[in-house]
Amino acid sequence: MSSRENEDFEPLVVLQFSSSTPPATKEWVIKRLTANPNDDQGAGLLARYDTDPESDKRVILIGATLSRLLIGAEELRIKKRYKNKGLTEFLVSDTDHFENSENPENLLLKSEKQRIIWEEIQNLHPMMHEHTVPGVPTKSFSSKNDTILNILHSLDFIGNIFPLHDKEELKLLEHTWIKSVRSISKPQDINKIRDYFGENVAFYFAFLEFYTYALVPPALLGLLISFSSSSDFFKYSSLCIFNVIWWTIVMELWKNYTNKLAHQWGTLDIEIFERPRSLYYGDPQLSPITNTEEPQYPLWKHLLKKYLVSYPLMLVCVAISLIMYFTYCGIQQSTDEKYPFDDSVLFIHAKSMRMAPSLGYSLLIGPVNLAYKRLATFLTDLENHRLQSSYENNLTSKLFIFFFINCFVGLFYQAFFNANFANVTQLLTSMVIVNAILLKFTEQIIPYLWKLQKKKQLIEKRSDDAQVSSAVRQLKTLTPFQGTYGDYVTIFEQYGYVALFSAVFPWVTICALVNNLFELRGDAFKYCHVYQRPFAQQSWNIGSWHYAFDILSSIAIVTNTALIAMQPTVREYFSSYTDVEYILIFVAAEHVLLAIKFFIDFAIPDVPYEVEIERVKALYESNQALRRQRANKALQAEKSIVRL
Amino acid sequence: MSSRENEDFEPLVVLQFSSSTPPATKEWVIKRLTANPNDDQGAGLLARYDTDPESDKRVILIGATLSRLLIGAEELRIKKRYKNKGLTEFLVSDTDHFENSENPENLLLKSEKQRIIWEEIQNLHPMMHEHTVPGVPTKSFSSKNDTILNILHSLDFIGNIFPLHDKEELKLLEHTWIKSVRSISKPQDINKIRDYFGENVAFYFAFLEFYTYALVPPALLGLLISFSSSSDFFKYSSLCIFNVIWWTIVMELWKNYTNKLAHQWGTLDIEIFERPRSLYYGDPQLSPITNTEEPQYPLWKHLLKKYLVSYPLMLVCVAISLIMYFTYCGIQQSTDEKYPFDDSVLFIHAKSMRMAPSLGYSLLIGPVNLAYKRLATFLTDLENHRLQSSYENNLTSKLFIFFFINCFVGLFYQAFFNANFANVTQLLTSMVIVNAILLKFTEQIIPYLWKLQKKKQLIEKRSDDAQVSSAVRQLKTLTPFQGTYGDYVTIFEQYGYVALFSAVFPWVTICALVNNLFELRGDAFKYCHVYQRPFAQQSWNIGSWHYAFDILSSIAIVTNTALIAMQPTVREYFSSYTDVEYILIFVAAEHVLLAIKFFIDFAIPDVPYEVEIERVKALYESNQALRRQRANKALQAEKSIVRL
Repeated sequence: MSSRENEDFEPLVVLQFSSSTPPATKEWVIKRLTANPNDDQGAGLLARYDTDPESDKRVILIGATLSRLLIGAEELRIKKRYKNKGLTEFLVSDTDHFENSENPENLLLKSEKQRIIWEEIQNLHPMMHEHTVPGVPTKSFSSKNDTILNILHSLDFIGNIFPLHDKEELKLLEHTWIKSVRSISKPQDINKIRDYFGENVAFYFAFLEFYTYALVPPALLGLLISFSSSSDFFKYSSLCIFNVIWWTIVMELWKNYTNKLAHQWGTLDIEIFERPRSLYYGDPQLSPITNTEEPQYPLWKHLLKKYLVSYPLMLVCVAISLIMYFTYCGIQQSTDEKYPFDDSVLFIHAKSMRMAPSLGYSLLIGPVNLAYKRLATFLTDLENHRLQSSYENNLTSKLFIFFFINCFVGLFYQAFFNANFANVTQLLTSMVIVNAILLKFTEQIIPYLWKLQKKKQLIEKRSDDAQVSSAVRQLKTLTPFQGTYGDYVTIFEQYGYVALFSAVFPWVTICALVNNLFELRGDAFKYCHVYQRPFAQQSWNIGSWHYAFDILSSIAIVTNTALIAMQPTVREYFSSYTDVEYILIFVAAEHVLLAIKFFIDFAIPDVPYEVEIERVKALYESNQALRRQRANKALQAEKSIVRL
Repeated sequence: MSSRENEDFEPLVVLQFSSSTPPATKEWVIKRLTANPNDDQGAGLLARYDTDPESDKRVILIGATLSRLLIGAEELRIKKRYKNKGLTEFLVSDTDHFENSENPENLLLKSEKQRIIWEEIQNLHPMMHEHTVPGVPTKSFSSKNDTILNILHSLDFIGNIFPLHDKEELKLLEHTWIKSVRSISKPQDINKIRDYFGENVAFYFAFLEFYTYALVPPALLGLLISFSSSSDFFKYSSLCIFNVIWWTIVMELWKNYTNKLAHQWGTLDIEIFERPRSLYYGDPQLSPITNTEEPQYPLWKHLLKKYLVSYPLMLVCVAISLIMYFTYCGIQQSTDEKYPFDDSVLFIHAKSMRMAPSLGYSLLIGPVNLAYKRLATFLTDLENHRLQSSYENNLTSKLFIFFFINCFVGLFYQAFFNANFANVTQLLTSMVIVNAILLKFTEQIIPYLWKLQKKKQLIEKRSDDAQVSSAVRQLKTLTPFQGTYGDYVTIFEQYGYVALFSAVFPWVTICALVNNLFELRGDAFKYCHVYQRPFAQQSWNIGSWHYAFDILSSIAIVTNTALIAMQPTVREYFSSYTDVEYILIFVAAEHVLLAIKFFIDFAIPDVPYEVEIERVKALYESNQALRRQRANKALQAEKSIVRL
C-alpha cells in the first residue's frame, strides 16, 4: 500500500506545500496518507511526488485503489443507482446489485472519488504516539483533537489543494453546455454539471438558469406596458401586483424544484447523516445517535456565542456602516452648498471639492468591507458549528446583511428620503450595466487572458520535449476556486434591483434578462477554464440564499408600493383624495399584497408530491426492516430458549 | 370466537342502532364483527346484545380477546415503552421486551384497546359474495369499496357509537385533575389526560393551560400600566411592543412544547404511517409506498376541487356575510335617523323600531351560520382527503375564516371606520364576559343538571333491584362527544379579543385570565361528566389552530398600531407632526414590529434539541437496520451460490 510500490496510479487530488515546508514534514504527510487505516490509523490512500521539475518537489499527487474508494463510498453513504430500482446507499458487500458493477472502475464518478479522498484527508489524524510535527519540533498537538490538515494549515504549510480536472470529461461537458448549437436553445443538462462539479455548483447553475427564465414574463410585461397608452397608475400598479404574485410563485416553484433535484441526486435527507466539520471541536463524548465517540460542544455555549456575541457585534457593524453612509451624505450636502456652481471661474475647483467626499467614501468602503468579512468569518468560526452546511448558512447570513446595507441603502435613501428619481435612475443604470460589464472583465476575461499567458510561459520555458504535468499546469494557470458565494452575490444584487424598483423602472428587468443570458454562458466558461476544479460538495438546496431572496421579495412589496405612491402622476390620478386618505389607500394595498404573498407561500407545498411519496416509501422500507430485524431477534431468542 | 361463546367479556365499545333498524341487519352486523379475520374477512371481535331491558335490543356491546387486541396494536403501530429504552412500535412476537409484559392485560391502555376496536369497526367490509344489506334488500353495495359502517350510516341505522367510560380510572383521573387541593396549585398531569382521552383531547387541555399561563405576564403588565401615571402613548406603545414580542415567543414555545409532547407520546412522525380515512374513495391501485392495494384518488382532481370549487365558493360565502353585515349597518343607521329620540311621546316606538334591524340580523345569522357549516362539511367531504388529519385541518380552516368574519368584523367596523370606542368597549365587554358565562351555562351546567335528572328517572323507573347497565346509563345521560372544535373556537375567540385590542383595552386580558382559570376546570368537568367518552385519536399538534392563532397574531400588530394611532391623546402627544408624518411614523412602526415577529419566528427552532436528537437517532437506527438487512441478503446470496 506504500507510495513506493504504486508509482503509476491515476492521480486525483493535488496537494501543494508552501515553500517553507521542511522535507521531513512532507515525508510525514505522505506516510500518514498512505498508512494502513486499520493498523496505523492512516488514510490508506496512494501518494507520490509529482515528477515535473517545475513542481519543485512541493507537489504531491494523491490517488487511491478501487477497493479503498469503494469502502470510502460506503462510509460516506454515497447513493448509487440500484439495478431496477432507485438510488440506494452503496454497500461494498452488495456491490453486484448496483448499476455498472460489471465494470467496477466506473461505479463511482471521478468527482465522487475525489470527494472520498478529500474527506479522508480532512479526517486524517496523527498517530496516537505522535506529539510533535516531524521537521517542526516546536509544534506540538493532541493526536485526538487535531487533524493533520488543521495542523498544516496552522503552520501555513498548505499552498493549495484541489482535485484535478479531467480533460476528456470536461470537453464532453463543455460541448453540451456552452459550445454546441443545442446549448443556446435548450436548457443546460444539470445532471452532467452535477456529475462533474458536485451538487453545490450544480445548484448554483440550476438557480441561475431558473431565475433567468423567470425574468422573461416580467420583462415582456414591462416592455408591453411601457408602450401602452394607459395611465401611469394603471401601468405601475399592474406591474407591481404581477411582480408580487409572480416572484412569490417563482420562489415556491424553485423550492419545489430544489427538492426534486435533491431527491434525484439522493441528497434530500443527507443532512441527518452529515459528518461533523473537521474544524468542529469539543470534548469527546458518546454520540447519542451513533453511539460512537464524537466531539460534542455544549449547545448553550454555542447559542450564547451566537446570540450574545455575534448578533450584537453584527448590529454594531450595521450601525457603523449606516453612520458612515449618512455622514458621507451630510458632508456631501454641505460641500454642495459651500461650493455652488454659480461662479464659473471656480467651476473646476467647485467640481473637485464636490467630488472629494464621495472619493473619500469609496476609498473607505473597501477596507471596511474587508474588515467586516474577516469579522464575520471569525465570528462564525467562533460559534463552532458542527455541520458544514450550518457553518456556511450562518456565514452567508452575516455577509448578506452587511452586503444588503452597502448595496441598497444608497438607493433607498435617494428614492425615499430625497425622492430624487433622477439620481435613482442614474444609480440603477450604473449598477446594473456597468457592474455587469466590469464583473465579466475582472472575473472571466482577465483571468482567462492571464491563464493563456501563463500557459505560454510554461511551454516556452521547457527546453526538452517533456510535457508539462497536468498538476503543474492546473496549479500555475488556473485560479483557486473560492466557493459559490461571489456568484450568488452577483445574482442577489441584480435580483434586488429587479425586485425592489422594477414597478417604476421596468427596463431594469430587461437589462437583467439580457445580462443573465450572457452570465449563464460566462459562468460556465469560468468554471471550466478559469477556476481550478472544486471538490464536489453535497447539498440539498441553495442554503441561506433562499431566505435572502425571500426577504428581498417581501421588502420589494413595501418599496414598490411606496415608489408608486411617490410618483407625481399617480398622485394626480388620485387628486380627489386628501393626503391622509391617499396614504391609507396605499398602506392598505401594501397589506393586501403582503397577505397575498403569505397565502401563496402557504398554499404551494414545498416538496413535490412524487418526491414526498418516494421519501415516505424509503421511510416505510427502513421501518419495515427494523421491525423484521426485531421479529427475527425475538424468534432467535425463543429458539435458543427452547434449545436450552 | 362467536358472540354466543363469550357472553362474559369486558365490553369496551357501545353501538346503538336506530329504532328503524331491522333485526336481520343487526344480526348481520354482529356476525361480521365476530367473524374470523382470516377465513371470513371479519373483524374478529366479540359482540353481544346489552342485557338491560331499557336497551330495547338495540344496543350492542363490543369487546375483543387480548390476543386480538395485541395483533391490532401491532397493525396500528401503537408505540409502547420498551424495557430499558424509549417508545418502540409494538410487535406481538417481541411482546416480552415491553414493560408490563408479565401482566399482558395491562400492556395496552383501555383507551388504546377502544381505539383498536374502533379502527377495526371502521375498516370492516362486507364479505366478497354479499351485495345487499340483509333486512334491506333494496340497498346494494360493492363489498370492495363500501365499509359496513358507511353502509349503516347511509341507511341512518347508527344511533350512537362510543367507548365506555371506566368508572375507576375516571375517578383517579378526576382526583388529580379537578378534585384534589393539588389540582389548584400544580399544573395538570397531561400524561394522565392523554392516557384516558387520547392525544387529541390532551392537546386541547395542554394548549388551554399553556395559553392561560401565557396570559399572566400581559395581564400583570396591563394592570401595572393602567395604574402608572405616564403618558397614554407610552402606556399603549409599551404594551403593544410587549404583546407582539410576547405572543410571538409564546406561539414558538408552544410549537416547541407540541413537538416535545408528540415525541413523548410517540406520535411525532406517525403522519407518515397514518391510515386512509374509511370514507376515502378512489380506484384500488397498488400503493407506491406499502406495495399493497389501496384506493387512490387522482391528485389533480383533488386539487381541482379544492382550488376551483371550494375556495371560490368560500370567497362567495365570505362576501355574502360581509354584505349582510354592512346592509344591516346601513339599515340600522337609516332607522336611527328616521326615529330620533327627541320626541318623548314616541320614545318606545322609536326604541322598538330601532331594535328591529339588529333583531332581524341576529335572527338571520343563525341559519346562515348553520348553512355555511353544512356547506363547509360538504365541500371538505367532496375534496376527498385521504387522511383524517388533513380532512380536519381543511374543515377547520374553512370554518375558521367564516367564524373570524362573524366574530370580528363588527368590532373592526366600530373601531376603525366609526372610531366609536364606546361601542367597542361595550361590544368587548359583552363578548368576553357574557359569552363566557352563557357558554358555561349552555355547555356545562345545563347538560349536567339534565344528566342528573335523567339518571334519577332511570333509577326510579326500575321496579326490581337490577342495576342499570353502564352502557344504557352513559347512552341516556351523557351528551355525545362532538369533537374539540367548539372548545378551540372558544379560546380562539377570546385570544382574538386579547390580541387584537389589548394594547388599548388591557383589562380584556385580565378578564380572559380569570375566565380561563375557571374554564380549565369547567372543561375538565365537562369531559369527565357531561360528554360520552371520546375515541382516543392520535395527533401530533393542534392542527390548523396553530395557524389560526398565528394569523391572528399578525393581524393584531396591524390593529394595535392602528388603535394606538387613533387615540386622541396619542395624536396630541405627536402634535408637532403633520397628519401625513404622523401616519407614516405609525406605518413604519408597524413594519418594524412585523419584521421583529418574523425574525423571532425564524430564530426559534420549532423542534426542541433533545427531540431532534431522538428523532435522528431513530432514523439512524432504522437506516442501519436496512443496511444490515441488505448486507445479510448479499451474504446469503453469496453462500447459496457457493453451495451450488
